[in-house]
Amino acid sequence: MKSTKNQMDQNSAPPASRKPRADGIESRRTILDAAARLATVRGLGGLSIGDLAQHIGMSKSGLYAHFKSKEELELATIDTAAEIFETDVIRKVPPSVRGLARVAALTEAFLQHLVRRIFPGGCFFATVAAQLASHPGRARDRIMHLQAAWAAQFIVALRQAREAGELPRGADVNQLVFEITPMMFRANFAWIVTEDERVLDQARVGVKNVLARATGETGTREKRRRPGKP
Amino acid sequence: MKSTKNQMDQNSAPPASRKPRADGIESRRTILDAAARLATVRGLGGLSIGDLAQHIGMSKSGLYAHFKSKEELELATIDTAAEIFETDVIRKVPPSVRGLARVAALTEAFLQHLVRRIFPGGCFFATVAAQLASHPGRARDRIMHLQAAWAAQFIVALRQAREAGELPRGADVNQLVFEITPMMFRANFAWIVTEDERVLDQARVGVKNVLARATGETGTREKRRRPGKP
Repeated sequence: MKSTKNQMDQNSAPPASRKPRADGIESRRTILDAAARLATVRGLGGLSIGDLAQHIGMSKSGLYAHFKSKEELELATIDTAAEIFETDVIRKVPPSVRGLARVAALTEAFLQHLVRRIFPGGCFFATVAAQLASHPGRARDRIMHLQAAWAAQFIVALRQAREAGELPRGADVNQLVFEITPMMFRANFAWIVTEDERVLDQARVGVKNVLARATGETGTREKRRRPGKP
Repeated sequence: MKSTKNQMDQNSAPPASRKPRADGIESRRTILDAAARLATVRGLGGLSIGDLAQHIGMSKSGLYAHFKSKEELELATIDTAAEIFETDVIRKVPPSVRGLARVAALTEAFLQHLVRRIFPGGCFFATVAAQLASHPGRARDRIMHLQAAWAAQFIVALRQAREAGELPRGADVNQLVFEITPMMFRANFAWIVTEDERVLDQARVGVKNVLARATGETGTREKRRRPGKP
């Protein structure tokens, strides 16, 4: 996720030889903010330069001046969403928060991102990843890279927990990430459809339960019972 | 899920006054099978009567004879996918398999459904639900109803487990379903993109871990450790 800015410079910004004017940069950002929001409702594939121009009240030719192709628009939209996610979720958890506390804080930051409705269609990456799953290409590669970067946030935090003795030395960090992250995905889609805060609580309890299991404790919601056989 | 056939009769079949001929029924089924498969790649919104006609080599007017509107085509496609899912997943687990064994068997039936690549874009419902999340309407309602029916399969099995004493009496069945089903969702999307069987194993282990926690045992992959504090 840290490389997002560089990726933008490399792939999405106008060539260095033709320095964009400040108002050009600003309207580019306006377009991309609108595109990222719209993509969570219509899908990245549903973004057309014509529709987008109409949506933000800009001429189609004005939009073409910023993006030469549909693919360029899609990639720049993904990078914009990544920057928003970085600011609104990841940077909300300072590096001093480590280990299991970091896992809980990242989960909460994600759920608050949904509550604040930064994107009308919930988490940009959950929605767009589901839409692009069967469409190999540069857009899907970029989304997969960013999803891996999100998972890596949890891998780092769980490794910190393991090193600090919060988790047993044998804890399978990849398996834990596989169990933790889908609950946020699930909460996202249930939240979009139902707007029922209980789904956010289910995700909180779910993550807590995964961590309780990993630390050797059972979850808080079930009555503890001794295992019959080892 | 049991009402699927009735729903089809009510909403999608031609009016009773004009009884369809056998070959009409057959071509309707050919269209809908193709539509369900295509929807997992292009999305339900990406199904156009024109594209679909071209895809299956039928005239556009021939297709219009079967479906008067895009919405009718979408709803009939969902019902067809539901029938396929019922046959290929749910009926693979006989009613005699109950409780925790039923949870494991349903999970395995779902994963085998992915392995058999019944739909090119993985689980029809996972893909289409993600696409429709921000689009209220009859198609989304139908998908939500079918997803609830799938979750209900797990609710029933977990209640059986609770009644049989496999789970503590205080076990929160809804929370368990919230923790179990997203892992299949996650495995679905990872499987489409990576075709790596390890993601199927991660889902199997994940479901086992949720159940182990609920029964009061810790998971099989982590070294058991006594909780330091209650």
